[in-house]
Amino acid sequence: MLEFEASLAKAEAHVGVIPVPAAEVIAAQADVARFDVRAIDEVMQSAGNLAIPLVAALTRNVGDVDAQAKGFVHYGATSQDAIDTGLVLQLRDALVLIDADLVRLTQALVHQARKHAGTLMPGRTWLQQALPTTLGVKLAAFVSALDRHRDRLERARHEDLVLQLGGAAGTLAALGSQGLAVSEALAEELGLDVPDLPWHTQRDRLCDIASILGMLVATLGKLGRDIALLAQTEVGEANEPAAPGRGGSSTMPQKRNPVGASIAIAASVRVPGLVSTMLIASVQEHERGLGNWPAEWETLPEIVMLAAGALAAMLDVAQGLDVDAERMRGNLGLTNGLIFAESAQIALAPTIGRDAAHALVARACRRALSENAHLRDILASEPEVVQHLGSERIDALFDPGRCLGESSALIERALARHPRQAH
Amino acid sequence: MLEFEASLAKAEAHVGVIPVPAAEVIAAQADVARFDVRAIDEVMQSAGNLAIPLVAALTRNVGDVDAQAKGFVHYGATSQDAIDTGLVLQLRDALVLIDADLVRLTQALVHQARKHAGTLMPGRTWLQQALPTTLGVKLAAFVSALDRHRDRLERARHEDLVLQLGGAAGTLAALGSQGLAVSEALAEELGLDVPDLPWHTQRDRLCDIASILGMLVATLGKLGRDIALLAQTEVGEANEPAAPGRGGSSTMPQKRNPVGASIAIAASVRVPGLVSTMLIASVQEHERGLGNWPAEWETLPEIVMLAAGALAAMLDVAQGLDVDAERMRGNLGLTNGLIFAESAQIALAPTIGRDAAHALVARACRRALSENAHLRDILASEPEVVQHLGSERIDALFDPGRCLGESSALIERALARHPRQAH
Amino acid sequence: MLEFEASLAKAEAHVGVIPVPAAEVIAAQADVARFDVRAIDEVMQSAGNLAIPLVAALTRNVGDVDAQAKGFVHYGATSQDAIDTGLVLQLRDALVLIDADLVRLTQALVHQARKHAGTLMPGRTWLQQALPTTLGVKLAAFVSALDRHRDRLERARHEDLVLQLGGAAGTLAALGSQGLAVSEALAEELGLDVPDLPWHTQRDRLCDIASILGMLVATLGKLGRDIALLAQTEVGEANEPAAPGRGGSSTMPQKRNPVGASIAIAASVRVPGLVSTMLIASVQEHERGLGNWPAEWETLPEIVMLAAGALAAMLDVAQGLDVDAERMRGNLGLTNGLIFAESAQIALAPTIGRDAAHALVARACRRALSENAHLRDILASEPEVVQHLGSERIDALFDPGRCLGESSALIERALARHPRQAH
Amino acid sequence: MLEFEASLAKAEAHVGVIPVPAAEVIAAQADVARFDVRAIDEVMQSAGNLAIPLVAALTRNVGDVDAQAKGFVHYGATSQDAIDTGLVLQLRDALVLIDADLVRLTQALVHQARKHAGTLMPGRTWLQQALPTTLGVKLAAFVSALDRHRDRLERARHEDLVLQLGGAAGTLAALGSQGLAVSEALAEELGLDVPDLPWHTQRDRLCDIASILGMLVATLGKLGRDIALLAQTEVGEANEPAAPGRGGSSTMPQKRNPVGASIAIAASVRVPGLVSTMLIASVQEHERGLGNWPAEWETLPEIVMLAAGALAAMLDVAQGLDVDAERMRGNLGLTNGLIFAESAQIALAPTIGRDAAHALVARACRRALSENAHLRDILASEPEVVQHLGSERIDALFDPGRCLGESSALIERALARHPRQAH
Repeated sequence: MLEFEASLAKAEAHVGVIPVPAAEVIAAQADVARFDVRAIDEVMQSAGNLAIPLVAALTRNVGDVDAQAKGFVHYGATSQDAIDTGLVLQLRDALVLIDADLVRLTQALVHQARKHAGTLMPGRTWLQQALPTTLGVKLAAFVSALDRHRDRLERARHEDLVLQLGGAAGTLAALGSQGLAVSEALAEELGLDVPDLPWHTQRDRLCDIASILGMLVATLGKLGRDIALLAQTEVGEANEPAAPGRGGSSTMPQKRNPVGASIAIAASVRVPGLVSTMLIASVQEHERGLGNWPAEWETLPEIVMLAAGALAAMLDVAQGLDVDAERMRGNLGLTNGLIFAESAQIALAPTIGRDAAHALVARACRRALSENAHLRDILASEPEVVQHLGSERIDALFDPGRCLGESSALIERALARHPRQAH
Repeated sequence: MLEFEASLAKAEAHVGVIPVPAAEVIAAQADVARFDVRAIDEVMQSAGNLAIPLVAALTRNVGDVDAQAKGFVHYGATSQDAIDTGLVLQLRDALVLIDADLVRLTQALVHQARKHAGTLMPGRTWLQQALPTTLGVKLAAFVSALDRHRDRLERARHEDLVLQLGGAAGTLAALGSQGLAVSEALAEELGLDVPDLPWHTQRDRLCDIASILGMLVATLGKLGRDIALLAQTEVGEANEPAAPGRGGSSTMPQKRNPVGASIAIAASVRVPGLVSTMLIASVQEHERGLGNWPAEWETLPEIVMLAAGALAAMLDVAQGLDVDAERMRGNLGLTNGLIFAESAQIALAPTIGRDAAHALVARACRRALSENAHLRDILASEPEVVQHLGSERIDALFDPGRCLGESSALIERALARHPRQAH
Repeated sequence: MLEFEASLAKAEAHVGVIPVPAAEVIAAQADVARFDVRAIDEVMQSAGNLAIPLVAALTRNVGDVDAQAKGFVHYGATSQDAIDTGLVLQLRDALVLIDADLVRLTQALVHQARKHAGTLMPGRTWLQQALPTTLGVKLAAFVSALDRHRDRLERARHEDLVLQLGGAAGTLAALGSQGLAVSEALAEELGLDVPDLPWHTQRDRLCDIASILGMLVATLGKLGRDIALLAQTEVGEANEPAAPGRGGSSTMPQKRNPVGASIAIAASVRVPGLVSTMLIASVQEHERGLGNWPAEWETLPEIVMLAAGALAAMLDVAQGLDVDAERMRGNLGLTNGLIFAESAQIALAPTIGRDAAHALVARACRRALSENAHLRDILASEPEVVQHLGSERIDALFDPGRCLGESSALIERALARHPRQAH
Repeated sequence: MLEFEASLAKAEAHVGVIPVPAAEVIAAQADVARFDVRAIDEVMQSAGNLAIPLVAALTRNVGDVDAQAKGFVHYGATSQDAIDTGLVLQLRDALVLIDADLVRLTQALVHQARKHAGTLMPGRTWLQQALPTTLGVKLAAFVSALDRHRDRLERARHEDLVLQLGGAAGTLAALGSQGLAVSEALAEELGLDVPDLPWHTQRDRLCDIASILGMLVATLGKLGRDIALLAQTEVGEANEPAAPGRGGSSTMPQKRNPVGASIAIAASVRVPGLVSTMLIASVQEHERGLGNWPAEWETLPEIVMLAAGALAAMLDVAQGLDVDAERMRGNLGLTNGLIFAESAQIALAPTIGRDAAHALVARACRRALSENAHLRDILASEPEVVQHLGSERIDALFDPGRCLGESSALIERALARHPRQAH
């Protein structure tokens, strides 16, 4: 907000609306070190917003130095101009930080996805083993989603982070015929674009940012949840990096809790409600909202902080992900071959029909379960299957490396934006 | 979903995965008229999703005609492929309808904004009269927001409405080495793009659409709320169009309730919670979500329907908006000139300083209130004011047409995309 | 709503406000079979609510039979009286059905909890094995929560399901001095209580019901989630009941998906957003809300249906829960004794101090992990441990039956309301 | 949390689980002044929760004084026991403060409702004038809702604020056979009830509190919104109390913004999303949630603070409410008598039928509007009306004091719990 006030004064001096010396004094005084933030905060309650006591304090400070300059503080602006543009400047900084971590997280996942392009593991649907897949294709899907979020944030930075300057009713009335000239100069000063119109009560740009961060956090929450599920004692396929004191228990010495995942999941539980608040809050009355506007003040910063925190937590996890490829392969063997049931069905379908194949293999699966036998042996004991496939092809059905479909090609498609780095 | 199944068969025949005659039979049977929708719905409960009984019914129908073709129904696909691609096709159609109404609503508002570019009315902040503005600039801000929503939807149609085909675990395993070829052919058949990867559990694209519709509904809710506020008995500046039976009361013969606004406001209250559900639901486990995926099934369609309904309701209102420009002008006179207080302060600031001007005018406002006198007369009785401004300039301060700042320019900026139509 | 109109007429006849024969005609005509519901629905859009066209249709029907009675339809009431009281009557019926299933579900869980009071299984925190527990204590915690929900619903039925009759502005003005008398008679007729005041825009009672159902659904969601986690291929401790066609896959013949859990989880993802909508919607303006009131119309019924559906789904699951006690016991052995680490620490703490014991056992756990040895053997090789505990007591530490603490007593406390049934 | 640790030690000493001198040292050290809160906070991030570093610090502090006592810190408890019971103790204190303000607010409204029992004002539905009502009946409806919230909070304090002590897996295993005895002693020490079972992952009690506060905030939001609507420049029937610096504008000297209402409305926009987060978060896995539990940590305190803030803001407003009874009466005259249309219809209905009366009066209303004439004069010019009612009764229809129905009785019913105080 102080950056807004300083830049506003400079822009108005540039355009000739206020004297240059006044602008210089205002800009010099707009230094947070000169303010008693707690005192400003206390007045805010009855004033109704933070800009009123801040502008009052700035005016006092300026007046102490230059009685004439005092009259040109916050000239032609309204409280919301300072608050909204201040918010936009903060969002701009925050999104730079978020983008940097997003790049790092994506790189870490690209690296892991390439490394594990051939690491076989069970694909799971409805929390049940379904078909073999690879850790590479699993992680590539996150790279793809995170790339989309980066693109969205990049777009949002251009479309949404624009100047707010409208004056009391959004018409720039207090600046007479120089409102647009001041807007242009101020935007230049701050490095922001000028929107077609002030947006005091058209809040879609802020909702856009909130929504994109909401989607990012959902992806991070899924990454955390998938890793926490893989880290279960009974699954044991991946763990968060170990570090002294990380994920311990106050009472159980053996515990290694997935604390990074927990942070991301917690964010993914909290942010959706906050995004809904931003949408509800954006229905603001006439030329300035009452109640709904203040409802944004803590909500959007919370969304930003939760997104940044979840991102940092998952960056740690992704960079140090502790993969147990042997356990993954071992888990593929847990079902007595049932995880290959689809392969068998697909192999039989062309000759006996998809329907009959489904029925035949389902029956074989039930036998495998009740007899605690391997599906391969059950199928090898069915004359119809042997007749159609031959025993060699039956064996081949149970090679996980042969039933990965387009996994490799899919990984390459998803990672195409991220060229392998030369050494 | 039937369109998906028919096109899948055709694409697979084209690529050579299934026989052409089988594809022809499947496509011919994939006709909703041949299905008992209620029976399918009943099985769904225990099956867990709608595709299972639908595919079973389609398989039966195909089998009745051609026993061999039966084996090629839904070949290599999983339930979610049919459900998600079916959803994408529905969304594509829905967004065309929404866009059409969005164009109509924007045109209606452009027309009203141009017509009322000079229609003076009170600008209101915190539900209090603040400064004069025009109905034109008020409506132009909605045009600007709706144009942004159109751009977002246009982008979303390209980015988000992509094919889903991944098979049981998202690797296209059941199609062996022809998974990508089938994907390309199927996408061609349906007129959709092929994504880099199947997105069974990466749901950000659907959340993107939900969020954009959420923002659109918020704008419509604000339009409805502003009009409902203007339609209050004590304000009376605008009304919804009158029509027989519209907005009556079961007991009060004089009532003309803003029913269109009510529909838009109701949607703006309901959709944010649904958007938050989409975000929460998008944290889906591993290769297929359990519970969270089904949570989307009714939620996204509800968002679409609420958006479309709110849009249609506000289209009616905007096209027939009943503006009382005389009452607007009259309301500008309600405050004994207090609405012009900022003008007075601005006029005095350059000579006596912004701070002193604020204090002087605030004092004059209090006198105007307590003495029930016009602010102009109070100011004219203050020697300091007369000395600095002169009585003619004092009078001019209270001409609303002179304190509109950049209103006209702002309207033109906001409406620049919408050229005036030649007659 | 028709029940409201019929009872209103009878009550007004009873009090003497309208003629008895008119009330008889109205009551006879208030039969849903006599109405074209679709036509009423169509008019609703422009009328603004459902009561207006319904009352109009009832008035026509009555008029066809008795021209004089026509004038006494809906006498003194407003649309919202019919809509709200109609809703209350529906809620009353719905809560009876929900309570019945809640009783059945609780009984099923009480039965399972008693049966499995001694069924040992791993307790899990942060999705990691922590300490042994029993299935009995796990299920007893659900019984306890469901009993609280029953108590809340029972209370809500008395406190919240009250008559709405207030007339156009909530003052019963149209009934002159007989408003309260009619209220009493109408409430008597419908079997509802009379509130202190009409509650057209004080919606806390409806929010109370929504919140309680929200809490119930959260408990059902947790029950579903816990069971789905136990049903994972790698855990295999419990499964949903098997039934033909239940939880199959369109492509994987071996799948047995937890479809009941999925329904409950989906509800637990959807209902919170709907509860937030009820709270937002309950901020209704003055004597009748605009937009916010209609926002309730579909939201509360959805909450009720989702709760009822989740309840029915989990009732099926609980009644047929397929427990694999052997696998549970087997899973206790997965960690080479680490799950008993706390026991060892507790045993050592009194002599060497909690801190030193924690450090010693944590060190032993790390050795057990790195050497792939059983924690018992590691501890037995530590002279300090042997000295303090002796080898017999070391062995006893690893008996899961000895480290259940107060499990049995806790089950009895939780099930105290549910006496064992005599045979 | 320190109060929990101190009381736990005392309780365990009382039961004989740990030595009395150790408990004395622990209790003495459990003093927040001895802790570096920032350092604890920093460790929390990797530890996963706040109790781990706090217990570690307490253990160090105790060890510095008494090496033996060190081993008995946090004895038999788990982190969540400290965190949850600490939360319960904070909630208990918070609810006492909230109840005190709730009593004050209710008293202020009772006082205003009695004072304005006869203050006539327009009742408004759909933001349109509907029928006359009184400020008394309007405010009495708030008293009634706030009384219900008080009852709910009172009940919640007893039902929901219970001890949490379960140890690592909720079985009190680490306390052997003395778990329940320690629970009883600890609960006695803290003044809390012992629940039937530990509730680590059964979070309905916390949701109950969140929901009740959510309903309270909704009522406060409505109170704020109604007052803000009455304070509109064009309505002017009520204002927030004036105070220096309260509700000013940084640019408009005449503004008196409803800042108290704004705080309550903002809370009512924010809390519903937070309540939905509590419900979502309460689906916690097995014996300790991962991610969902931490999602509660900031959410519930935010709900409490927003409720307390909204309450304090509306208390100010209610105590100093600035009512303009003259303007209220004046506004009743704004519609040329249309606000009395229902009275006329009701008067005519018994003789010509409700339907015909509605049509006749609606026609008269339309004439009144188009001819800008008073409805009384229009009706007096209709022979049918004069014939049925006579001119004296026509006049009486337009006396607002005669069409208040049961207003007085309703106020008395709503205020019955609040006896008039003797002087």
